[in-house]
Parts: sequence; structure tokens; C-alpha cells
Amino acid sequence: MTQAEYMLAENYMLSCMEDSAHDKEHIYRVLYNALEIAEGEPDVDCDVLIFACLLHDIGRKEQFDNPTVCHAAAGAEKAYLFLLKNGYDELFAGHVRDCIYTHRFRKSSPPQSIEAKILFDADKLDAAGASGLARTLLYKGEVGEPLYSMLPDGTVSDGTNDQTPSFFQEYRYKLENIYDKFYTAKGAALAAGRKQAAMDFYDSLYREMSEPYINGKSRLDKIIKER
Amino acid sequence: MTQAEYMLAENYMLSCMEDSAHDKEHIYRVLYNALEIAEGEPDVDCDVLIFACLLHDIGRKEQFDNPTVCHAAAGAEKAYLFLLKNGYDELFAGHVRDCIYTHRFRKSSPPQSIEAKILFDADKLDAAGASGLARTLLYKGEVGEPLYSMLPDGTVSDGTNDQTPSFFQEYRYKLENIYDKFYTAKGAALAAGRKQAAMDFYDSLYREMSEPYINGKSRLDKIIKER
Repeated sequence: MTQAEYMLAENYMLSCMEDSAHDKEHIYRVLYNALEIAEGEPDVDCDVLIFACLLHDIGRKEQFDNPTVCHAAAGAEKAYLFLLKNGYDELFAGHVRDCIYTHRFRKSSPPQSIEAKILFDADKLDAAGASGLARTLLYKGEVGEPLYSMLPDGTVSDGTNDQTPSFFQEYRYKLENIYDKFYTAKGAALAAGRKQAAMDFYDSLYREMSEPYINGKSRLDKIIKER
Repeated sequence: MTQAEYMLAENYMLSCMEDSAHDKEHIYRVLYNALEIAEGEPDVDCDVLIFACLLHDIGRKEQFDNPTVCHAAAGAEKAYLFLLKNGYDELFAGHVRDCIYTHRFRKSSPPQSIEAKILFDADKLDAAGASGLARTLLYKGEVGEPLYSMLPDGTVSDGTNDQTPSFFQEYRYKLENIYDKFYTAKGAALAAGRKQAAMDFYDSLYREMSEPYINGKSRLDKIIKER
């Protein structure tokens, strides 16, 4: 890959980025994570990997504007057309497209090639640990979702089996279980090193958020009933 | 305070709440925190305190729509007029107004009455620990600010002396130093118990965010230069 090729894809990526949980720095972290993971794997096509990393979230705007659109599918197609238009052959463009198509956290379309597996792991690594929690909180703020839901008994739900979206729901549903979903040994090891920080933060936040309610309502009722 | 009086103020509060970092659950946590802190203080006027807590953020929308407006000043005036309109006397309404006016984190107008000090501490407690970090991240997402800024040398700034807004900038500028700003012993003790969780999360997040850049750019340059 030449500097000009890199900048072509980087500029296209920059023109597509919008929200702060998936901003350009997320793209650079994924790219740099991917290059670290790639060092532990044989026969990686670094050109495919670099293009796939740079362009993996260019379909985010399409999904944000219309939530029925999958950003991985939309981004894969945009990247494919972008590469063909810029003179890359169909085999190369198709390989990049497939990496992007399978980078999302879904069982139905797992990554196949080593480059696709590395992109998947590099992207998931940014959803692990403190990073994953911080980025999820940014996103929840952006779409106006709360930290937690209340249970019918007036206590704070820890997110388990919640049906309504919240930060704790996302933690229980996805973030807590991300660590055993890696395809490469290096990706899994890097993610494992981040797990405790995420667990500690979730535990502290749940405790801090739930404690005020435990005696607060009865203190309030006592003051109101005295009158 | 009667149940009807409480519900009058609660319903007015609910009609004023919008963003997810300052949603109604923040109001209830502040109220319950305040009632806990009040137990350690003599001669607290609980009616003033409850109204001040319920109504302390009703000026948020005004500040969000026009950032030159201070939500504490706007909310204080709204609460004052609301109470007068509903038959409370000027002394009572003025006391609630003063509590709300001084609840913001500013040196220029510190809280004077014990009720104002308790509201201040109860609100700051929700900005301490994991709670403060999580709520700040929600807010940064809502207003589209990033986790961090980049330094000219291509490394991640830890927020110290940053001029541009980001989560790390807010942590260094405000959240890190909140623990010695409490007026009541109980408020300070509750906040101190939350400090380590916040420090640990910031440290983990900074490490995770900054590490990919350290060797990432040189790995990338090496691949590009080989061609």
C-alpha cells in the first residue's frame, strides 16, 4: 500500500464519520489494534486489512438515519463500490467488502478470512474493558437512552432480562459477554486484560445508582406522613 | 409537606426534564441523597430541601437551548414563580430559590443555608465516583464531544490543560477535584467512598485509549514504506 492509496481511503472514511462513539479515533484505534493482532498471524494481506479497518464503519450514517439498515452491510457495499471506482480489481474489493460485512457482532455471518477475523477482533477490542463502557455511554447519551430502568418494586434494575434499552441492559446483554467471542489468540488476550476494569466499573456504578433508592423513598414517606 | 404538595412539585419537575444525564432519576437520587445527608445535620427545613431538590434542574432546557443562560439562575427563578403562583409565601419561595441558585459548582455564589449546602452536596455526590463519570459520558455523547483530544505529537492527551472540550478534559478540570468541595461531613464521606472507582476507571480508559497509538503509527508507516 502506498501513502497515496492510504490517504485515498482515509479521506473517504473521514467524509463518512459522524457520531462521537464511532468517530475517526475509533477507526484509528481499530486499525492500530488490527496491526498489532496481525503480527501474531501468518500470511495476512495487510492491504486488505488496512482498507477494511479504515472503511469498516462508513455505513454508520445510513444505519443512524434508518435503524432497519445494517451499517456493516451498507458499509461493505459502499467500500466495494469505492474500491472498484478507484481501480482496484473485483477480487481485492470483494475481499475488503466481505471483511466489513462480517465485522458486526452477529452469529449469522461470522468472519471467514484471517483479515476478516482480525478486523472483527480489533473492533470488538474497542468494545471491551473501560473503552467499551465509555463508548457505549457516549452512544446512549447520543440516542437519549438512560443509565438504567426501574423495577416495579421501586429498585434499580441491574439490566438482567431488561426489555427496555439502557446502559445496564446493554452491559448485561452484550458487553459482559464479549470476552469469549474473539477469533484470534492475541485479540482474546488483549480483551481479557481489560475485563476486570469493566466489571469493577459496572459494579461500582450499580451500587452508587441503586443505594439512594433503598432508604430514600421511606425517608421521604416518613416526612410526608408526619404532616 | 403533604402528598399533594409533593406531587405538585414532582409533576412540574417531570414536565421540565429532557436530557438523559439530568433525567428524572438524577432528581430522585439527589433528593434521596439529600435526605440521607440531612439526617446528620440539625434544624433542616425538610420542606424547603425537598422542593429545592425536586426543582433544582428545571432550568436545564433553558441552558441547553441557549448556553449563555445559567440553568441554576433560570431554574431558581422558575421555581420561585411556581411556588408563589401555588400559594407559598415569599419567604419560603425565596429560600427555595436561593438553594437552587447556589447549587452549581461555582466559587462566585456559594450555598449559604444548611438546606442550600445539602442540595449542593447531594447534587455533587451524583457527579462523584462512577456515577459522575457515567453521567458525564452520557452528556458528552449528547452534545457530540469526544473522549479525548490528540496532542501534536500524535499521542492521546490525558486532559491536563486541554483547551478543547472532551471527557478527559472534563475529568481533569472538574471531576477529579470534586471531592474536597463538599460542605457537609456526610456528603464528603459519601463522596470519598466513591473516589477510587472513578480514578481506576479514568486510569484504565486512558491506558486503553492511548496504547494503540504508541506503536500503531509506526507499524502502519512500515507497511506503507515497504511498497
